[in-house]
Amino acid sequence: MEIHKGLDGVVVSETKISSIVENQLLFAGFNIDDLVAENVQFEEVIYLLWYLRIPNSLELKKFKQDLALEMQISDTIITCLKIQTRQNLHPMSVLRSTISLLGVFDPNAESTDERSIYHQSIALQAKMPTIVAAYARLRKGLDPIAPRSDLSIAENFLYMLTGNEADQVQVDAMNQALVLHADHDLNASTFTARVCASTLSDVYSCITGAIGSLKGPLHGGANEKVFDMLEEINSDNLNVADYLNQKLDRKEKVMGFGHRVYKTEDPRKKHLKKLAKELTTITKKEQWYFLSCQVERYLKETKGLIPNVDFYSATVYHCLDIDSDLFTLIFAMSRVSGWLGHINEQKKEDCLIRPRSHYIGPKQLKYSDIQTIHSGGMEA
Amino acid sequence: MEIHKGLDGVVVSETKISSIVENQLLFAGFNIDDLVAENVQFEEVIYLLWYLRIPNSLELKKFKQDLALEMQISDTIITCLKIQTRQNLHPMSVLRSTISLLGVFDPNAESTDERSIYHQSIALQAKMPTIVAAYARLRKGLDPIAPRSDLSIAENFLYMLTGNEADQVQVDAMNQALVLHADHDLNASTFTARVCASTLSDVYSCITGAIGSLKGPLHGGANEKVFDMLEEINSDNLNVADYLNQKLDRKEKVMGFGHRVYKTEDPRKKHLKKLAKELTTITKKEQWYFLSCQVERYLKETKGLIPNVDFYSATVYHCLDIDSDLFTLIFAMSRVSGWLGHINEQKKEDCLIRPRSHYIGPKQLKYSDIQTIHSGGMEA
Ligand SMILES: CC(C)(COP(=O)(O)OP(=O)(O)OC[C@H]1O[C@@H](n2cnc3c(N)ncnc32)[C@H](O)[C@@H]1OP(=O)(O)O)[C@@H](O)C(=O)NCCC(=O)NCCS
Ligand SMILES: CC(C)(COP(=O)(O)OP(=O)(O)OC[C@H]1O[C@@H](n2cnc3c(N)ncnc32)[C@H](O)[C@@H]1OP(=O)(O)O)[C@@H](O)C(=O)NCCC(=O)NCCS
Repeated sequence: MEIHKGLDGVVVSETKISSIVENQLLFAGFNIDDLVAENVQFEEVIYLLWYLRIPNSLELKKFKQDLALEMQISDTIITCLKIQTRQNLHPMSVLRSTISLLGVFDPNAESTDERSIYHQSIALQAKMPTIVAAYARLRKGLDPIAPRSDLSIAENFLYMLTGNEADQVQVDAMNQALVLHADHDLNASTFTARVCASTLSDVYSCITGAIGSLKGPLHGGANEKVFDMLEEINSDNLNVADYLNQKLDRKEKVMGFGHRVYKTEDPRKKHLKKLAKELTTITKKEQWYFLSCQVERYLKETKGLIPNVDFYSATVYHCLDIDSDLFTLIFAMSRVSGWLGHINEQKKEDCLIRPRSHYIGPKQLKYSDIQTIHSGGMEA
Repeated sequence: MEIHKGLDGVVVSETKISSIVENQLLFAGFNIDDLVAENVQFEEVIYLLWYLRIPNSLELKKFKQDLALEMQISDTIITCLKIQTRQNLHPMSVLRSTISLLGVFDPNAESTDERSIYHQSIALQAKMPTIVAAYARLRKGLDPIAPRSDLSIAENFLYMLTGNEADQVQVDAMNQALVLHADHDLNASTFTARVCASTLSDVYSCITGAIGSLKGPLHGGANEKVFDMLEEINSDNLNVADYLNQKLDRKEKVMGFGHRVYKTEDPRKKHLKKLAKELTTITKKEQWYFLSCQVERYLKETKGLIPNVDFYSATVYHCLDIDSDLFTLIFAMSRVSGWLGHINEQKKEDCLIRPRSHYIGPKQLKYSDIQTIHSGGMEA
């Protein structure tokens, strides 16, 4: 019997949403390098992932209006966020609960007609940045800032964090990070969403589950840990080689390195590395970029390990003044677009995802025999 | 390229927790028929699924004490439940959010040492019935009833629903239902929990995700729908054959029938059918049992479809005076024991679950070409 541990290389579904071909990542047939070069807006990428084509300008305008109409969060959600404001809470757990509560309070959450699914998807996509920004402020004792319907998702998010409109460089960087993280074949959180969708559960359940998986340090949770590592090396003025060697000797994984699918290059890395370079220069935080390059070089040379999407994104987010424990939430704000596309696709496939396990324990035990042993009967 | 739609028959993991062999279901080597015949307590089955052996009497006593110490829910959780008390909310969504919030408020939620994992597992297992019972009362405007440390899980749950100690017959039925639903190989919710665990996310994330999958009507959500169907047939005095034929003609699935793995018999059914017969007799609700038998007979004869675990459990829960929209929550109260065992096993396997998809959309599209088309350039 073949055991497909980790489902490595096992093809579960056909998809039209994204593909990895020869170290290139494509969204519905468009290479991400092309989308980045064309400075495509994240909103357009969301549309692409849901409708599998680029919207024309009228469609995009309508789509953005629909998003803008759903960006606000209710007072009930703000109350729930406040209840979750306390030190040492994991912000990804707060996001998980809050998205789940969005579903509880959506009177339409159980409806499965196309219109309702669209409405649920728009609501989830539009409200997530508002929730993240509101939480970032509430936990510092600040009032949340309402979203503005005249700003893009990237602009709005940075605006809601501080109350000030961000520079164009920052907005472009934020937008590009959102574009690059939007989808990625059957990564673990997307797969979680699809398993859930295959039971015909509701959209909020699927997204809540996906957030839980993205939180894991082997998946989206890595970007937070990357910055913790860089800070540790930097603040203690450690030698990079020594630090990494010790980590590897302890058989610890270096966060932000390695990938199940990419073995020579993650196509998203070069863009994030470039952004990291630009932003660290502008913000005079060059040390993070140089340190990152050092880590990259050392791991490549000694172990052949390559940085993944999470490695340079950590420095990018740091330069955008985002706390490191919120990095994975930014990932979620982006990836939710892909999750929503995949949930829809999975529901149309209409096939329960239900694998098997191989039992390797003892067999044919009898309860009464064990009871006899436990009561000392065997020794009597 | 082979596409493993639904992962039908694909073996993902080795396990020591449960197994399906020749239409028999075994928990860590013990046939559920044996466990039911011996009237084993649900607490003992939880222990079995976590430690892969039957506890001796001292171990079981200690285990029950640990559960008893964690049965209470905090005022914050009760406040959160109250916020979620409104008509037309799906109780499974409320359970999903509330379990997620338990994780937010557990200061230990991120700890991964063995002691912490044990504590998190005990807390989740012990608090779930308290949450379900509290919610069942709160939404009717009644105060929650605190759990009693001298009662078993089955007794306690029925007690917390009404404030009265239940009859032995009811307690035994509740206990047996909990035992029978406790685990089941890599069903969709357990698999969801394992995918999440494979990212090394925390236990609360895994359980929250699993609840979302269990909610789906093709999985645990079926038991609620079974009773809706029985009620529909009964209240409108419909002809069973006509009703089912119409349903099948519309290509609708009959809830509580069919199974990915069992094709001739679900080994849990006979026990639940027996319970349904006993309880409907005692409570003078024989019509539900007879109606169920009619449905079973008709679908078997005409379509070869067999009832699964959800079919007769619906009538059992109804006879225990539980509202039909809470049935899937009872399933969760039981299955959480299996989920917790599997999460632990998956983390030890230490391998990210990350399959692939096969891309079938258009390739090598260029953004600038599409823009030209959209701006009318092609027609110019
Ligand atoms: C992403 C990841 C889970 C892929 O895992 P995978 O496909 O199962 O690959 P494996 O874990 O089998 O890795 C193959 C080998 O490279 C090593 N390796 C992989 N990533 C590593 C890392 N980040 N640090 C150190 N060693 C690593 C493994 O230890 C293994 O070595 P071995 O063959 O001597 O046992 C893994 O690379 C990882 O844990 N990375 C760190 C977390 C991270 O950045 N995640 C974000 C992914 S976008
Ligand atoms: C459980 C279930 C998802 C298993 O699905 P599966 O292994 O993918 O099996 P399929 O859906 O491919 O079923 C095989 C055939 O039986 C039919 N079938 C299966 N269950 C059916 C049901 N409950 N009602 C009507 N037809 C059913 C299918 O339509 C299919 O027919 P086809 O070959 O003509 O297309 C499916 O039986 C189902 O949806 N049941 C109802 C929901 C339920 O009770 N779930 C609880 C499971 S414990």
